[in-house]
Amino acid sequence: MSESPVSQEPPIYRRIADGLRTRILAGELRDGDRLPGENTLMAEHAIARATARQALAVLINEGLAVPKRGSGVYVRLFKPIRRHGSRRLSREQWGQGRAIWDADTRGRPFTVDEVEIVRQPAAPDVAAALDADEVWVRRRRYLVDARPVQLASSYFPAEVVEGSAITLHDTGPGGVYARLGDLGLPPAHFTEEVRARMPRPPETDLLDLPGGTPVIEVSRTAFTASGRPVEVNRMVLDSAAYILQYDFDA
Amino acid sequence: MSESPVSQEPPIYRRIADGLRTRILAGELRDGDRLPGENTLMAEHAIARATARQALAVLINEGLAVPKRGSGVYVRLFKPIRRHGSRRLSREQWGQGRAIWDADTRGRPFTVDEVEIVRQPAAPDVAAALDADEVWVRRRRYLVDARPVQLASSYFPAEVVEGSAITLHDTGPGGVYARLGDLGLPPAHFTEEVRARMPRPPETDLLDLPGGTPVIEVSRTAFTASGRPVEVNRMVLDSAAYILQYDFDA
Repeated sequence: MSESPVSQEPPIYRRIADGLRTRILAGELRDGDRLPGENTLMAEHAIARATARQALAVLINEGLAVPKRGSGVYVRLFKPIRRHGSRRLSREQWGQGRAIWDADTRGRPFTVDEVEIVRQPAAPDVAAALDADEVWVRRRRYLVDARPVQLASSYFPAEVVEGSAITLHDTGPGGVYARLGDLGLPPAHFTEEVRARMPRPPETDLLDLPGGTPVIEVSRTAFTASGRPVEVNRMVLDSAAYILQYDFDA
Repeated sequence: MSESPVSQEPPIYRRIADGLRTRILAGELRDGDRLPGENTLMAEHAIARATARQALAVLINEGLAVPKRGSGVYVRLFKPIRRHGSRRLSREQWGQGRAIWDADTRGRPFTVDEVEIVRQPAAPDVAAALDADEVWVRRRRYLVDARPVQLASSYFPAEVVEGSAITLHDTGPGGVYARLGDLGLPPAHFTEEVRARMPRPPETDLLDLPGGTPVIEVSRTAFTASGRPVEVNRMVLDSAAYILQYDFDA
């Protein structure tokens, strides 16, 4: 498809964007570098301001650049977090008291903020997934290198986890999965559903997303060996910050 | 976080968008229904045209609605394709001569067009992944229910597959994986990397994406039992058309 002849010359703003993209992907323009401003592009290419703005908007929309108010447009190549779907959730990980999040960040500084833990009636979809009317919800936001990268809400059947450390701020070594193990319900199987979409207004604010950055939605259900669902985790990820990796056999 | 008190009343265009979103998600407004037009929203809420436009833009950006030129904005809830990461690539599937694509679409009509098959020098990243300087590339576009949903480019080490049906339009029963099996190199392990981003200009055209629709990028490498890479497949998916599912054990 890319080999087929083009029927038309692409518009000038696209050609300018193509040129800048090539320089970014080749490493000539690097993370944090300021892109040529509107005035520079106008003078260099003898174009109108609106055209220069369009060219920069292409790169912003692709997540390769980010505007900073009153200061210009900058290359943004945050080193993405490689989130390893299966390895990170291996029993070896939480069974030995390690935090799952350590597997993702590999030593990069991360923090968890805005932790909210409440018992509440389950929304219809969560109630159906967990076969429970009431849930304990753990909501939090993760930051890596001081940048917010993920919102997560974990739901547990309230009757099952009531009185356990899953309802506390400090869940203890190995976290919620180790505690489910203490309750005789260790997770044995996981299903993750992955989608992408544009963020909704509160997500844009909480993840500090520049315009044109989609989010990845991961919805995971944890099941015991006998197939009983014990957790639903709804995650919203800044797509520019993540690569999701899944390994499996034929 | 969603429970925390709001410090400010949201602007009117957001409240209008919220109301329409609720009606869509509740099923009151259905796939293909026309949303209230700018004039209707202006009269109903006593707002300016720009405000009405902003409200509709919110839903378009979230992928819940799509503008049709000169005709209005319509609900778009295409029944997503559930792409099952591991099951679809099981040896049972291609070993018995079935097409992998059948596992995804479950009887929905699908077509493959724009198939291009060429031998060419490998780009640096593909060369590194396959340990090969020259590759055979199979490029195609998939359509489901007559809607383009995926672009895919499969790369094979040219020396390995030269002269096999992998270089032909008709790869025979079981497709390229069965043919790699014939060559003594059946895939045993797969790694998929999943990202999301805004589409690049040719992708917007080929996938017929409305504004504000991100794409999911899946990059898969197939390895033999001895760890030899035999295929790299770069896929670009319309995010509004797909749910990716991955199952794994603790």
